[in-house]
Amino acid sequence: MKTVLLKDVSLHLGEKIKLQGWVRNYRKASSKLRFVIFRDGTGFIQAVASKPDMGEENFEKVKLLTIESSLEMIGTAQKHPSRENEYEFLLEDINIINIAPEYPISKKEHGPEFLLNMRHLWLRAPRQNAIMKIRHTCYYAVMEYLESQNFYRFDSPILTPTACEGTTTLFEVPYFDEGSAYLSQSGQLYLEPGIMSLGRVYDFGPVFRAEKSKTRKHLTEFWMMDAEAAFVEHEENMQIQEGLIRHIIRKVIEKNLTELEVLERDVEKLKKADAPFRKITHRQAIDLLKEKGFEIGYEDDFGAQEEVALTEDSDIPLFIEKWPKQIKAFYMKLDSENPDVVLGADLISPEGFGEIIGGSQREDDYDLLLERMKRDNMPLEEYEWYLDLRKYGSVPHSGFGIGFERIVAWMSGTHHIRECIPFPRMINRLKP
Amino acid sequence: MKTVLLKDVSLHLGEKIKLQGWVRNYRKASSKLRFVIFRDGTGFIQAVASKPDMGEENFEKVKLLTIESSLEMIGTAQKHPSRENEYEFLLEDINIINIAPEYPISKKEHGPEFLLNMRHLWLRAPRQNAIMKIRHTCYYAVMEYLESQNFYRFDSPILTPTACEGTTTLFEVPYFDEGSAYLSQSGQLYLEPGIMSLGRVYDFGPVFRAEKSKTRKHLTEFWMMDAEAAFVEHEENMQIQEGLIRHIIRKVIEKNLTELEVLERDVEKLKKADAPFRKITHRQAIDLLKEKGFEIGYEDDFGAQEEVALTEDSDIPLFIEKWPKQIKAFYMKLDSENPDVVLGADLISPEGFGEIIGGSQREDDYDLLLERMKRDNMPLEEYEWYLDLRKYGSVPHSGFGIGFERIVAWMSGTHHIRECIPFPRMINRLKP
Repeated sequence: MKTVLLKDVSLHLGEKIKLQGWVRNYRKASSKLRFVIFRDGTGFIQAVASKPDMGEENFEKVKLLTIESSLEMIGTAQKHPSRENEYEFLLEDINIINIAPEYPISKKEHGPEFLLNMRHLWLRAPRQNAIMKIRHTCYYAVMEYLESQNFYRFDSPILTPTACEGTTTLFEVPYFDEGSAYLSQSGQLYLEPGIMSLGRVYDFGPVFRAEKSKTRKHLTEFWMMDAEAAFVEHEENMQIQEGLIRHIIRKVIEKNLTELEVLERDVEKLKKADAPFRKITHRQAIDLLKEKGFEIGYEDDFGAQEEVALTEDSDIPLFIEKWPKQIKAFYMKLDSENPDVVLGADLISPEGFGEIIGGSQREDDYDLLLERMKRDNMPLEEYEWYLDLRKYGSVPHSGFGIGFERIVAWMSGTHHIRECIPFPRMINRLKP
Repeated sequence: MKTVLLKDVSLHLGEKIKLQGWVRNYRKASSKLRFVIFRDGTGFIQAVASKPDMGEENFEKVKLLTIESSLEMIGTAQKHPSRENEYEFLLEDINIINIAPEYPISKKEHGPEFLLNMRHLWLRAPRQNAIMKIRHTCYYAVMEYLESQNFYRFDSPILTPTACEGTTTLFEVPYFDEGSAYLSQSGQLYLEPGIMSLGRVYDFGPVFRAEKSKTRKHLTEFWMMDAEAAFVEHEENMQIQEGLIRHIIRKVIEKNLTELEVLERDVEKLKKADAPFRKITHRQAIDLLKEKGFEIGYEDDFGAQEEVALTEDSDIPLFIEKWPKQIKAFYMKLDSENPDVVLGADLISPEGFGEIIGGSQREDDYDLLLERMKRDNMPLEEYEWYLDLRKYGSVPHSGFGIGFERIVAWMSGTHHIRECIPFPRMINRLKP
């Protein structure tokens, strides 16, 4: 008898098969009929336990099952009598593996603190399961797309001697006799040596921000993908980003329709986002915001409210490019047509999910870069290696970084980013 | 005119094309002829600069080129007149992007400290470039194989409240008002809740060991892939590992023959390793070692010397299974046929590259697990969430962890593991 995964059950209709998994829920229809909602990680199915069909002894075993008990089910799958594209499982027998005591997560509403304390069990809930599957799809889609664009994986270090940007939000780690190490906030600077060896590189790992923010968009530990490419300038940099995001959207729609349904995600909205991305300059964005009544100046950054205001009229992601150099990082290349702005762009998602990519062409001129580092009072000896890249074989190059959980939140339509990572870490949350 | 990557140059022979990259080296053959070894990240080619062919003005530009200068080359590629599967590039013109000053890494032997200080430039060396490409191939092969085996990516946290195994080698991080966090040494325990939601899961991220070891096999920050699967028992666990490793070997041979040649890696050795893996028990291994003259007892662990002695007679990886429970972790399941040993296996690579996988079936019985945790004096309240997994829907399950840089070292034939990661971190090395 074959053991079958639920994702493949449609290929085995009418065969006697074995399933292995857990009781999601059960319902007593009568003294002779029970329904068991069963899950195995790859899918869900309703199993029908009929006392006349399976015999009294086997039916008695079914009556022992509780929520989250584990078992093997033996029987045959068939098309659901009324629901399209659904199947049900006619039980012949079960092998009980473990009978669970009363499950702590019930149907009633639990507060977020309770659920986060129970994260190790909460992950089994259909919504959480669906989000994790979408996360998987997004991750794989990123790798696939970058592979097709000749990027090599090039892991940047987590333990770093200096801060990449800013210093107030760093986690500090005592490091043997070397003083302190800091947990990386971005791998970007370390990708730049990579492109001089490999042409195009990316990393994809955890980054850390010791921010005291408690918003629904902040985690202290989250995953980030940084990509960097030699001989790519500002316009092409945005094209690569657009291609990547649209590939992710298509893959999620292709692979996760079931999960999107569990999450009640509006798939039409995702389909509409798979269109040529819109693009405005920072200056145009400020004008738009002024029209909408915001009090904002031409050298101001945006907050969440401004991002929403700029994207609420369209389902298509929006690049905001050419930012005032004062409010962007030292390594962004100045626009030769207007040296007050940098050749950087932020990509804002639709539907209020905020900024998902920050990217730019990088300053490749040694003297200009040095000047800007001096202006920012950066410790030059710590960055000598980074300056070396402009000395030996400097080339035009660009890159970008994706906040991965924000992509997952957008794709899955999840309000709180803490549900988009298996074990979220926040200012007051380090467990389990 | 088309810009072409060197990896695709054979598709454009005879066409006028543009290449973008760096001078690896150059050679003056006569006053009218120069050879430039050119690289673009995807490959290397020898460019031929002939004064009669390209004209004096263009030839003068070629004479300005130094090692690691960056440029565009315009001309045509053709088959190398004598060497099979190689190409050369007939230069018509060049666009100089950046002329590099004297390059710090010369042909003469440099000590490891110098090269590690220059890691940001050393990465461009052909050997380092080749190792990074093989690393990329290995990473992608792992993802591909696990995808084909229905594993979902499920990132475990890096900041953890307690140690997974041991406490003496932890990096400690002050964490707001929550006391200390510790950098993860293994994601395994966090994967186990994942399988109860998704069936099969894996993580692939950095882990940290504050070990004072200075051997060629130790890094303080390295990458590890942990996989965990519900309803998989000890034998199948080893089958999955074997399938994964053999897939990696095949992909490296398929994609990296050029790099293996640069590294002078004996490809025949790799081909021979792609055979059914050997398997002996820990007890048999001790007997073998005794025969070979080692003074070792039946409850002893192995060191590097023992690993070499056990694998020196064969090119095929070796599983050593069924270890004495005293020397293995608390979560490994006891063998029902002999409760003095656990259903765990270590996979030892051939050619002296040491242990590359540790894995086991996990204890799924609540009472037995609790008993072993008590025996080890573990802080039970910290592991309540982990014990919950044996209370609610416990199932037989197994998993394993791969030390990624060790796989890369083996595939690429690299003696020192510090060359198998872009920016190695060691006890006395945190820069650049």
